[in-house]
Amino acid sequence: MSEGSEGQYWVGFDLGGTKMLAQVYDSELKPLGRDRRKTKAASGSGGGLERITETIDSALESAGVKREQISGIGIGCPGPVDMAEGIVLNPPNLNWAEVPVGKKLQEEFNCRLGVRNDVDSVVYAEYVFGAGKGARCLVGVFPGTGVGGGCVYKGEIFHGAHVTCMEIGHLQIMPEGPLCGCGRRGCLEAVASRLSIAANAAKAAYRGEAPYVKDKAGTDISDIRSSVLADAITAGDAVIEQLVREAARQIGVAVGGIVHILGPDVIVLGGGLVEAMPELFVDQVSKSARKRVMAAYKDKFKVCASELEDDAVPLGAAAWARHKFAESPEPVPVS
Amino acid sequence: MSEGSEGQYWVGFDLGGTKMLAQVYDSELKPLGRDRRKTKAASGSGGGLERITETIDSALESAGVKREQISGIGIGCPGPVDMAEGIVLNPPNLNWAEVPVGKKLQEEFNCRLGVRNDVDSVVYAEYVFGAGKGARCLVGVFPGTGVGGGCVYKGEIFHGAHVTCMEIGHLQIMPEGPLCGCGRRGCLEAVASRLSIAANAAKAAYRGEAPYVKDKAGTDISDIRSSVLADAITAGDAVIEQLVREAARQIGVAVGGIVHILGPDVIVLGGGLVEAMPELFVDQVSKSARKRVMAAYKDKFKVCASELEDDAVPLGAAAWARHKFAESPEPVPVS
Repeated sequence: MSEGSEGQYWVGFDLGGTKMLAQVYDSELKPLGRDRRKTKAASGSGGGLERITETIDSALESAGVKREQISGIGIGCPGPVDMAEGIVLNPPNLNWAEVPVGKKLQEEFNCRLGVRNDVDSVVYAEYVFGAGKGARCLVGVFPGTGVGGGCVYKGEIFHGAHVTCMEIGHLQIMPEGPLCGCGRRGCLEAVASRLSIAANAAKAAYRGEAPYVKDKAGTDISDIRSSVLADAITAGDAVIEQLVREAARQIGVAVGGIVHILGPDVIVLGGGLVEAMPELFVDQVSKSARKRVMAAYKDKFKVCASELEDDAVPLGAAAWARHKFAESPEPVPVS
Repeated sequence: MSEGSEGQYWVGFDLGGTKMLAQVYDSELKPLGRDRRKTKAASGSGGGLERITETIDSALESAGVKREQISGIGIGCPGPVDMAEGIVLNPPNLNWAEVPVGKKLQEEFNCRLGVRNDVDSVVYAEYVFGAGKGARCLVGVFPGTGVGGGCVYKGEIFHGAHVTCMEIGHLQIMPEGPLCGCGRRGCLEAVASRLSIAANAAKAAYRGEAPYVKDKAGTDISDIRSSVLADAITAGDAVIEQLVREAARQIGVAVGGIVHILGPDVIVLGGGLVEAMPELFVDQVSKSARKRVMAAYKDKFKVCASELEDDAVPLGAAAWARHKFAESPEPVPVS
């Protein structure tokens, strides 16, 4: 990895629904310092921008890097993003309505700054450092609170003219399916996110069909984390395995659709659920997708688990900022 | 349109399920001569390659152009295509199993030759000459015997590493839906192609609910063409309007999915059904797609009808061949 010039510093930022994380990198994208805080998503964006600024400043301090030494900042945000303005556009899982994150931070830090979708950032990290190295068309599917998607096509993050795309979680899977956080019905994330699986697992626990889940986490879906689901399967809660496999099967149906549309060579699966049960997900998604695609596509794609675990969002966001801004001949603006 | 060098001649070829058509163009893509024959798809590929050769030779003759004057040939074929080998890969509507069309014709005509999906060719023609001029991301949806799709992204036909993609007709729309020609269930083309509409219209005619269709075409789906459906709606067969609108609504659901995935700026609808009822389709597909997409995408795309009617496949295939081969500095091989 020798893209970018020596002596440059890059900041990657992950604006998540529950936490925000800033990471400072050198020109080779080796991490130098970090900081994380709670996002407090439910209370709206008030104070959020200040908290982002503090988090970045604190990460810079721990890295021993000054504001004016930053070559660029890459930010990964949930949901659709207006890239030109750096606005987070009403993502279902972050209660921030159209906050111009990019513009405000650009004014604050006075350096080149780009805002992308968080899964796009992760998929870009997998493309540069992980499971998708060198793929011609890499598609990422990340089931979590929702189901995120991202695509790197011929070395670039695939996006629309102004707004990010690859919102795989909002493909319609079940015409009259359950209500989704986006307000529509039967979206993939309404049937196959960790939240949906947890809700079904809670019902099974309530009915006495999932004794391990009942014992370890009860029936509160906030406590039914990916690790609980994975352990329940190992402990023999058969209904939980059925629920997780059914979600993976539905993800496979969506992946089959993506294969027909984009003809990707690599599909990378990630997020907490997949990290907790990588073999189950790779196996079930791959089987279900191959069953859905026409003969011409059957052996043309590979399904695998992500290789990068922690901090893939800030790493990908910083790598992408380096890719876009490091080649620029303009001097880095100094505040 | 001044791409390409003067004095060059290009051939566009449409290998359809019922007819094949060769068109010869000058360097500005003005048509000079053409010929068409029956494909005889049901009888397999035997004799098909000879018929293609004869059709091209006859078109050349009518254009007054010699084989050795051709700069390149572009071929549009139904279904997925292996582009490197120029192989048509088992399309549901053409009974040609893996015929190396590209290689055989390259040997025969000894010039640069490219094989693409027929809808990709049409969408490329719309991008260069028609409704999608200058679009950043143009997606075409063409309901006919099946439902074809194509995409031009940043000036290039979007495709996989080896195989064409954008097989919109094989997106799953209805999990337990009707059987599709591809062998799976509930694909878009199993619920929204002209063939599917005709089959439902035939049932309505049989039951006495569609008197105009019964009178003009009877209950044979081969006779229930797009024009019959359009005229039946005008004549007051309410159930036919309902069937056509329901198909358009389902196409809109698929288009909504495509908008979430690709963030296109223009969606062009075409094919016989749309040509017969452009307003109904544009209106219903647009409404249904906008209902399915998240707020961030609602006003970011336009749905319109194709502007090119006849011969868009050979025109697009030839335009694409010119785009790929005209810039090449290599001399045109002479037989």
